[in-house]
Amino acid sequence: MNETPVTVLGLGAMGTALARVLLDHGHPVTVWNRSPGKGDDLVERGARRAATAAQAVTASPLTVVCVTDYPAVRKVLGAVGDAVAGRTLVNLTTGTPAQARDTAAWAGEHGARYLDGVVQASPELVGTPDAVFLHSGPRQAFETHRTVLDHLGTVHHLGDDPGLACLYDLALLGLWYEAETAYLNALATVRASGADVEAFAAFAGGQIGHVAQAAPDTARQVKERRYPVGPAPLTVHLPVVGRLRDLRAATGMDTEPVDRLHAMIERRIARGHGAEGFTGLIEELTGQEAERRNVAPAR
Amino acid sequence: MNETPVTVLGLGAMGTALARVLLDHGHPVTVWNRSPGKGDDLVERGARRAATAAQAVTASPLTVVCVTDYPAVRKVLGAVGDAVAGRTLVNLTTGTPAQARDTAAWAGEHGARYLDGVVQASPELVGTPDAVFLHSGPRQAFETHRTVLDHLGTVHHLGDDPGLACLYDLALLGLWYEAETAYLNALATVRASGADVEAFAAFAGGQIGHVAQAAPDTARQVKERRYPVGPAPLTVHLPVVGRLRDLRAATGMDTEPVDRLHAMIERRIARGHGAEGFTGLIEELTGQEAERRNVAPAR
Ligand SMILES: NC(=O)c1ccc[n+]([C@@H]2O[C@H](COP(=O)([O-])OP(=O)(O)OC[C@H]3O[C@@H](n4cnc5c(N)ncnc54)[C@H](OP(=O)(O)O)[C@@H]3O)[C@@H](O)[C@H]2O)c1
Ligand SMILES: NC(=O)c1ccc[n+]([C@@H]2O[C@H](COP(=O)([O-])OP(=O)(O)OC[C@H]3O[C@@H](n4cnc5c(N)ncnc54)[C@H](OP(=O)(O)O)[C@@H]3O)[C@@H](O)[C@H]2O)c1
Repeated sequence: MNETPVTVLGLGAMGTALARVLLDHGHPVTVWNRSPGKGDDLVERGARRAATAAQAVTASPLTVVCVTDYPAVRKVLGAVGDAVAGRTLVNLTTGTPAQARDTAAWAGEHGARYLDGVVQASPELVGTPDAVFLHSGPRQAFETHRTVLDHLGTVHHLGDDPGLACLYDLALLGLWYEAETAYLNALATVRASGADVEAFAAFAGGQIGHVAQAAPDTARQVKERRYPVGPAPLTVHLPVVGRLRDLRAATGMDTEPVDRLHAMIERRIARGHGAEGFTGLIEELTGQEAERRNVAPAR
Repeated sequence: MNETPVTVLGLGAMGTALARVLLDHGHPVTVWNRSPGKGDDLVERGARRAATAAQAVTASPLTVVCVTDYPAVRKVLGAVGDAVAGRTLVNLTTGTPAQARDTAAWAGEHGARYLDGVVQASPELVGTPDAVFLHSGPRQAFETHRTVLDHLGTVHHLGDDPGLACLYDLALLGLWYEAETAYLNALATVRASGADVEAFAAFAGGQIGHVAQAAPDTARQVKERRYPVGPAPLTVHLPVVGRLRDLRAATGMDTEPVDRLHAMIERRIARGHGAEGFTGLIEELTGQEAERRNVAPAR
């Protein structure tokens, strides 16, 4: 067998799925879990069970960590300690960019290469192209182990900053939460007005699609900080948002989110950008603090 | 010529486009505008100019009104008065459902049939399939004049309540505003973290697309008021939203919108719905007042 030996720390739903797919691809797999009673199925399929996390890490050049959260990661790695020296860690635990960067720093201090990652799929999709893995950290480490990682799903390397995978993950989840909430606000407005939400839904998909279709162009504007007027200037958007507020108020909904948008447009107009497009509102979303960090990226 | 004579009141950008397309289709068109100096081009193309709005309305069985807003509509119709009796009004002015219903009531009192409508296109698209017209009001009036309306673009009749067109229009615009703001929040998070927004955009489109793809199913859940768990229960969403809040705070962004979502999820869990899906949050968006109206639709 020529496949890289891999260690998997954490045999929850996700860790078990990762270990199983690696076994399926012929990798020698060593597993470890905090509490006993997990991984019997993996051992039956050929996995070796290690008595401690440190012993597990010693068994392979590459260790995948997948536990509940970063506090759990810290506990596991604390017990591993210097056993990690000269090896590569791929941490697939969900967290914030700052947590990922801290863990990368810990790995550096202990002589390990560190790649962060997030799994954007449920465990049963692992091993299929529908399981998307976002990785970040030194490209070299990613390229070295790419064939192993490719077995797990569709992989992307986002850049050398180990915080990027968690950043994308949270920003994308936030995008879903907020776009879905936008849709729920629209449905609530329609339902509270006594109209049929299913009939309305037939029109809603296309409207959300406009945001998706324009996404690359919008991002380019944000990057260049130039906000062409597009379909309408902010001065035209303002009264429309005012009418939306009236409608929400009339249906008994909380108008706070629309009030907030209205105030943001007013502020942007007051700063002399009324003839520009909607995208320019991003400058109202990021404060001074954020502007400063944008120049010198946070670590 | 067999085409229905049509009157157009209001020769702004949109009214002019409407009149032009009707002339192109061979309708005898009578036009009127508050201030002089507009419509010369239409007259050259064969339109008749009326001296007053009342005279204009008398010239045709069907009158299209398209002025700035509903206060303007009220002024114009006030001057028209009983001249509207026995005729059909199609009002394509943007407004709220309540304003549309008030105008329908006025028309009823003056013996006119009333169809409301909104134009979801810029004037240069009028006359093409890309110009979408949403109509509401008595279906009979819509069917009677459907061939005329078809000349203007792709038309939909939403139902007999004259407020529906304005409701859909505002709810759809609100959906765009809030979904676009969701995207700007994500871009701001990425930019404020020092990462490249254009690289991020490549992943964002698909994420927004998930909301659009699930839109019909989400609406069905809302209609049935049954909220299956879907990809994750609210108890799993809560800590993710908490991490998103941490990230926004770390980048210097205002966390209020995420705080609000977090509190809403907590409330819904506290009411015993923690094992259900995200869509159930809609019940937190509509207050008692709204619930009451939902049973007896607002007029
Ligand atoms: N499941 C999914 O659908 C999914 C999807 C995408 C991403 N993820 C991410 O994948 C990671 C793992 O999720 P999961 O679904 O596998 O979770 P899970 O089924 O709840 O398993 C949690 C694992 O973490 C271990 N753990 C927790 N605290 C620990 C500690 N202090 N020390 C050592 N080990 C500890 C648990 O060990 P014990 O058995 O000893 O408790 C268990 O192995 C999470 O970050 C999650 O966000 C999951
Ligand atoms: N243009 C677009 O891209 C677009 C797209 C979708 C929907 N719409 C909707 O279409 C409607 C008309 O828009 P528009 O673009 O044509 O506006 P516009 O170019 O600004 O024209 C406004 C029209 O309203 C008339 N008007 C305003 N106040 C009046 C009053 N008190 N009495 C009589 N007439 C009055 C104006 O007459 P005067 O010439 O005398 O001022 C003019 O004919 C609006 O509700 C708008 O929301 C427009």
